[in-house]
Amino acid sequence: MLNVAIIGAGRIGRLHAENLCYRIPQTQVVGIADVQISAAEETAARLNIPFTTADYRELLAKPNVDVVVICSATDTHTEIIIESAKAGKQIFCEKPIDLSLSKIDAALEAVDKAGVKMQIGFNRRFDPNFRRVRTAIERGEMGTPHRLHIISRDPAPPPLSYVKVSGGMFVDMTIHDFDMARYLIGSEVEEIYTLAGVMVDPAIGAAGDVDSALVTLKFANGVIGSIDNSRQAVYGYDQRVEVFGSGGKIETDNNYPNAAHISTAQNVYRDLPLNFFLERYSESYVSEILSFVDALEHDKPVSVGGIDGRQAVVMGMAARKSYLEHRPVRLDEI
Amino acid sequence: MLNVAIIGAGRIGRLHAENLCYRIPQTQVVGIADVQISAAEETAARLNIPFTTADYRELLAKPNVDVVVICSATDTHTEIIIESAKAGKQIFCEKPIDLSLSKIDAALEAVDKAGVKMQIGFNRRFDPNFRRVRTAIERGEMGTPHRLHIISRDPAPPPLSYVKVSGGMFVDMTIHDFDMARYLIGSEVEEIYTLAGVMVDPAIGAAGDVDSALVTLKFANGVIGSIDNSRQAVYGYDQRVEVFGSGGKIETDNNYPNAAHISTAQNVYRDLPLNFFLERYSESYVSEILSFVDALEHDKPVSVGGIDGRQAVVMGMAARKSYLEHRPVRLDEI
Amino acid sequence: MLNVAIIGAGRIGRLHAENLCYRIPQTQVVGIADVQISAAEETAARLNIPFTTADYRELLAKPNVDVVVICSATDTHTEIIIESAKAGKQIFCEKPIDLSLSKIDAALEAVDKAGVKMQIGFNRRFDPNFRRVRTAIERGEMGTPHRLHIISRDPAPPPLSYVKVSGGMFVDMTIHDFDMARYLIGSEVEEIYTLAGVMVDPAIGAAGDVDSALVTLKFANGVIGSIDNSRQAVYGYDQRVEVFGSGGKIETDNNYPNAAHISTAQNVYRDLPLNFFLERYSESYVSEILSFVDALEHDKPVSVGGIDGRQAVVMGMAARKSYLEHRPVRLDEI
Amino acid sequence: MLNVAIIGAGRIGRLHAENLCYRIPQTQVVGIADVQISAAEETAARLNIPFTTADYRELLAKPNVDVVVICSATDTHTEIIIESAKAGKQIFCEKPIDLSLSKIDAALEAVDKAGVKMQIGFNRRFDPNFRRVRTAIERGEMGTPHRLHIISRDPAPPPLSYVKVSGGMFVDMTIHDFDMARYLIGSEVEEIYTLAGVMVDPAIGAAGDVDSALVTLKFANGVIGSIDNSRQAVYGYDQRVEVFGSGGKIETDNNYPNAAHISTAQNVYRDLPLNFFLERYSESYVSEILSFVDALEHDKPVSVGGIDGRQAVVMGMAARKSYLEHRPVRLDEI
Repeated sequence: MLNVAIIGAGRIGRLHAENLCYRIPQTQVVGIADVQISAAEETAARLNIPFTTADYRELLAKPNVDVVVICSATDTHTEIIIESAKAGKQIFCEKPIDLSLSKIDAALEAVDKAGVKMQIGFNRRFDPNFRRVRTAIERGEMGTPHRLHIISRDPAPPPLSYVKVSGGMFVDMTIHDFDMARYLIGSEVEEIYTLAGVMVDPAIGAAGDVDSALVTLKFANGVIGSIDNSRQAVYGYDQRVEVFGSGGKIETDNNYPNAAHISTAQNVYRDLPLNFFLERYSESYVSEILSFVDALEHDKPVSVGGIDGRQAVVMGMAARKSYLEHRPVRLDEI
Repeated sequence: MLNVAIIGAGRIGRLHAENLCYRIPQTQVVGIADVQISAAEETAARLNIPFTTADYRELLAKPNVDVVVICSATDTHTEIIIESAKAGKQIFCEKPIDLSLSKIDAALEAVDKAGVKMQIGFNRRFDPNFRRVRTAIERGEMGTPHRLHIISRDPAPPPLSYVKVSGGMFVDMTIHDFDMARYLIGSEVEEIYTLAGVMVDPAIGAAGDVDSALVTLKFANGVIGSIDNSRQAVYGYDQRVEVFGSGGKIETDNNYPNAAHISTAQNVYRDLPLNFFLERYSESYVSEILSFVDALEHDKPVSVGGIDGRQAVVMGMAARKSYLEHRPVRLDEI
Repeated sequence: MLNVAIIGAGRIGRLHAENLCYRIPQTQVVGIADVQISAAEETAARLNIPFTTADYRELLAKPNVDVVVICSATDTHTEIIIESAKAGKQIFCEKPIDLSLSKIDAALEAVDKAGVKMQIGFNRRFDPNFRRVRTAIERGEMGTPHRLHIISRDPAPPPLSYVKVSGGMFVDMTIHDFDMARYLIGSEVEEIYTLAGVMVDPAIGAAGDVDSALVTLKFANGVIGSIDNSRQAVYGYDQRVEVFGSGGKIETDNNYPNAAHISTAQNVYRDLPLNFFLERYSESYVSEILSFVDALEHDKPVSVGGIDGRQAVVMGMAARKSYLEHRPVRLDEI
Repeated sequence: MLNVAIIGAGRIGRLHAENLCYRIPQTQVVGIADVQISAAEETAARLNIPFTTADYRELLAKPNVDVVVICSATDTHTEIIIESAKAGKQIFCEKPIDLSLSKIDAALEAVDKAGVKMQIGFNRRFDPNFRRVRTAIERGEMGTPHRLHIISRDPAPPPLSYVKVSGGMFVDMTIHDFDMARYLIGSEVEEIYTLAGVMVDPAIGAAGDVDSALVTLKFANGVIGSIDNSRQAVYGYDQRVEVFGSGGKIETDNNYPNAAHISTAQNVYRDLPLNFFLERYSESYVSEILSFVDALEHDKPVSVGGIDGRQAVVMGMAARKSYLEHRPVRLDEI
C-alpha cells in the first residue's frame, strides 16, 4: 500500500484524490494540502482523508508519505518538486512543470540527484484511442508514418483571468498536443511553424493571447505533423488524431455518451460528444496513476518523465516564437 | 451511509461488492456470505469487508445491516428474499427471481407484507444506450413506436453444466431482453411466437435447450417486437436495439474499446466490440445500485420491481411453450 | 446489338427505356407500346425511339425485335409473356409475374416450351450492398448463416387507388424481400409466420390491407429469417440487411446522398438517406439488364428466372394466409 | 441540342465523350480529334461519333460545332483556347490551363475579347460531398469558418515519365485542392507555407519533385487552411474535407463501393473506398458539363471561370516557392 499526499485541492487535485481513494486499490491518501484550507477540508471530509493542511511542507515532513501528487498552481510546481525530491518522496506532477526552462531544469536536476521518480501528468497518453494509435504505429499496422494530424479543440475558452496567467495557449493548451505528437511519432520535433489568430473572443486577443491555431511540426524522422487548436468548439470536446503512413492510416473519432442514432423526417442525428476532459479522459486519469504506481512498485522508468514535461514547454515556446516572428522556428533556437 | 450485506460471492456478487466499496460513496459493505466460505473470504480480504460467513442468516441477524444484495444461486433466491423481508432488510435481488411462478409470488407477497423495497437486477435498463432509447420514446423523438427489434447475442455459450440448470435460454438469457422490451415500449406483451434451434453446439440441444432464437412479441399497445438471440457471436457481445415509429427510428450500436479505424491495402477495420457484460455493462451495474440507493434514501418506488422480475419469467415460459408447441402463445395461458 | 421493345411506358417502363438507350451500349430500343399512346409517344420523343403503338402486338409482330421488356400492369403480364414466347422473343418481365399461380404456371410453361429466356425484375439482387452480402455468404466470410434480418420500409404509402389493386402488401412490397431472402440464403423457405397491422393509415386497413408487418421465415437449411416492413418511414427509404452466422455477421447501411456530417451546438447530424427506389436502386436497374443481356449474348441461364418470380408470389400468399389465420403456414399449403 | 467537338481522346477525353453521348441529353458529339488518330477513331467507333481527325483545327473550322471540350496535353491548351475563341466556339478546358501565367493570361484575354464562355475542369466542385460542404457554409450551418482542412491523397503515383512533365505535384495534383479551398471558403488565399518531402518513391525526388506535402493557407478573410497531400494512399483515393467554424464543423468521409460492414472473430471491417477519380468523381464529371450547358443555354456566367483556373496555378507556384525557400510566401510575390 502506497501512502499518497495530494498538494492542491482544485479541480484536478480533487479528481486525483477521488481516483486514488476509489479506483486504485494499491494506494491510500493520507493527507491533502491547499493554501485555501477549506478546499482541502471539503475534499478530505468527502473522501475520508485523515489529514489536511494549508502548508504542503507538513505533508513532506511526514515519514509515512511515500508519494506526493502535485496539483497546485503552475508557478509553485518547481519549488514543491525540489523540496519533495529532497524529502525523498516519489513525485507525480501536473503539467506544465513550469513556464521557465531554467526553473524546470533546476527541478529535474533535484529529482535526478535525489534518485526519486517523477511522472508528469500527460494523461492523454493513457486514453484508449490514442494508446491504440501508438500501438498501431508500434506494430506497423499503417507502415512507416508520413503524416500526423492532431485535432484538439476545447468546448469553451477558460475564464479571461485564467488566460492572463496561463502563459498563453501554446504552453497551456497545445502543450498536451505537443506531448501527444512526440508520444505517437516517437521522434523529436525539429522545427515548428505557426499560423494563429483570434477568432473566438477579441478579449483573448486583448489579453495578448490567441485562441485558434494551426501548428505545423517537422520531426527529426521526416514525419510532417500538424496540430489544429481552437479554444471553442460549440459541439464539445474535439480530440482526434490521424496518422498516415506507407501502409495506410489510422483515425480516431471522439467519444460519445451513447451509441444511439436517431432518424427523423429532418435528418439523422446523434447526441454531442463528451463535453470536456473530465468525462472524455476520465479513464486516462486512473490509468496514468496506475502506470506510475506500477513504475514505483517494480522500480521501472516512469512512462512520462521530466524530460517529456520539459520538451513540451520548449515546443510551446517555439510555437509562440514562430507566431510572433512569422517564420519557421527551430527548437534549438529556444 | 447504508450498510450492505452481500449474499453470494460468485462473479456477479464480487462485481456488486467492488462497486459498493469503490464506486458508491453512500454505501459500505459490512459482510459477505457464500456457501463456499473461501469465496467470501477471498473477496472480503481484497475489499476490506469486515465479516464473512457461510450462512447468510448470520447477515440477516445483524441489526446494522440495512440492505441485502442477493447474488446466490437462482434456486435460493426466494427463500432468502422471504427471510430478508421478515428481517426488515431492503432487498436487491439478481435475476431471475426464480423459475417457479408460485415461489416468485410467495416472495413478492413476503416483500409486500414486510413493507420493504425490492429491486431486481435488470441492469441493462441503466445502460446509456438503452436509456437513450427509452428517453427518445418518452420524448416522442421518433413518434409513436410501431416496431421494436432487440439483438442480444452472447460471445460464447456458458458451460454445459450451467446450461443444464439454467432453466433454458429463454429464462436465463432472453429474460434480459424480455425486460428490455417491456421497459422500452412501456406496454405489456400479450402474445409470443418463437422460432428457435440448435445452431451453435449440439450438446446444448442434447441438454434439452436451444442456442439460437427469434422471439416475436405482440404488445398490448399494438407494437410488434422481435428478439434475436444467439449463444455465440464470435465477434463479441452484440447488444443492440432498434425502435421504429411514426416519426422515425432510433438505433443503437455496440460499444467499442476505442474509436480508432485503420485503413490498409486490404480493408478498413476497427477492433472488436467489448467482449462481454462485465465490460459492456460495467457502468449500468453502478447505476442500478445508485438508483436503488436513491429509492431507499428518498423512499421512492424502485426502478425495477418484483413484478418486473415476475413478468420476464412469464415471458420466458411463454416463449418456451411457443417453441415446443409451434404456435403463438398468449401470456395469459401461463 | 440487341433490338429491344418496351411494353408499358409508366414509371418503370420509362426507367428501363432510359437505361437501355443511354447506359447499355449493347442494346437499342426499337419501339415502345402503351395503352395510353400519349405516354409511349412522350417517351419515344424524348429518347428518339423510332416506333410507338398502343397495341403491344404490333411490337411482337416485328421480326427485328429480339427482346421485350414487359412493364405493363401486372394483370397483363402473363398474357404478354405467353404471346412474346410464342413470337420467339426473349423476355424481361417486371415483378410480380401475376397474382394467380395458375396464370404464372401457364406463362412459365409457355416460356419453357418456346425455349426463350425470361428474367424477372428483382432488381435488388443487383444492388451493390446486397450483392456484397451474397458474396460474403458465398465466401463464408461470416461462416454458416444462422439468421437473416431484412429491413424494408418505404418512405410513404402508395396512393389508395393503387393499394386496392396491388394484391396486398405481401405480394406488392414484401415480394422483393421474399426474393432477397431466397437470394441471400440460397435455400427455400418452408414456413412463414406473420405479425401485421395497420399503423400508418387506417384507410389502408379499410381497403383490406395492412401497412406494417414482421414476417418470420423458416428456411429448409435451418436459417431463421425475418422481414420488417413498413409502408412509411418518414426519414426515407430504409433498405438494410443483416446476416448472422457461425463466423460473424454482415450488416448493410442505407445509401446517402453525401458523406458529410455536421456537428453543431445541438447535435451531430447528416442528411437523410436516399428517398426512394429510383435513386437508391438506380444502378441495380442498369445491372439487371446488363446481366440479362449477358445471358442472351452468351446463352447462359438468366440470373433471376421465372421460378424465382413464382416462389416470391407463393411466399406472399403464405404470409397473408398466416396473418389471416394467425398461425405459422407452410409453403406447401399454398 | 448543342454540337460538341472533343479535342484529345486520352483518358479524360474519352470520359467526357462518353458522358456527352450517354448522360447529357442536351448535347451530341459531332467530332473528336487526337494527334494519335487511332485513339480518336477507337472512341468514335465505340460511341458513334461521326467525325475524327488528327488536327483539331478541322473541328474548329466546322460551323456546326458550338462547343469544344479541350482534353489535350496541357502545353497545347492555351493555343487551342485562343484559336477556339477566335472561331467563336464555347470552351470547356481541362485543368491546368497552362503552367505559364503569361500564356494563361493570353488565353484569358482571347476568350474575353471573343465574348465566348470558358469553363475550367475543376470537377470536384461538383462532387456531392464537397458541394454539401459549400452549401453548409453558405447556409451558415457551422457559423463563420475558422479552419479548413483538405485531405487529398492519390492511391498511387503517376508514371515517372508523367511526373517529369507534370510541372510538379503542386500544379499537377494540389491544384485541385487549391481550387477546392477557394471554392469552399469563398475568399482568396494571401499566403502559403509548405512542408514537403519525398516519402513515397525516391525516384520522384530524383526527378525534382516531391510526393508528400502539407500546405498551409492564410485566407484574406482570416480563415486558416491546410492541405494534406500524398501521392500514395495504399487504401485508395482519400478525398476528404473538414471545415470548422464558430457554430460547429462539417466533415466529409470518402465514398465506398458498398455500405456493408463485416464482423468476424478478428475485427470489424468494410471494403476499401473507391479507388480513384474515375469512380469517386464519376457523377461530378457529368454535373460539371451539365452546369456548363446550363450556362450556355441560359447565358449565365460559368461556374468555374478562367480566373479560377489561373488562381490555382498561382497558388501552386507559391506553394513550390515556399517549399524551395523554406518560408511563408505571399501570393502577390508570384
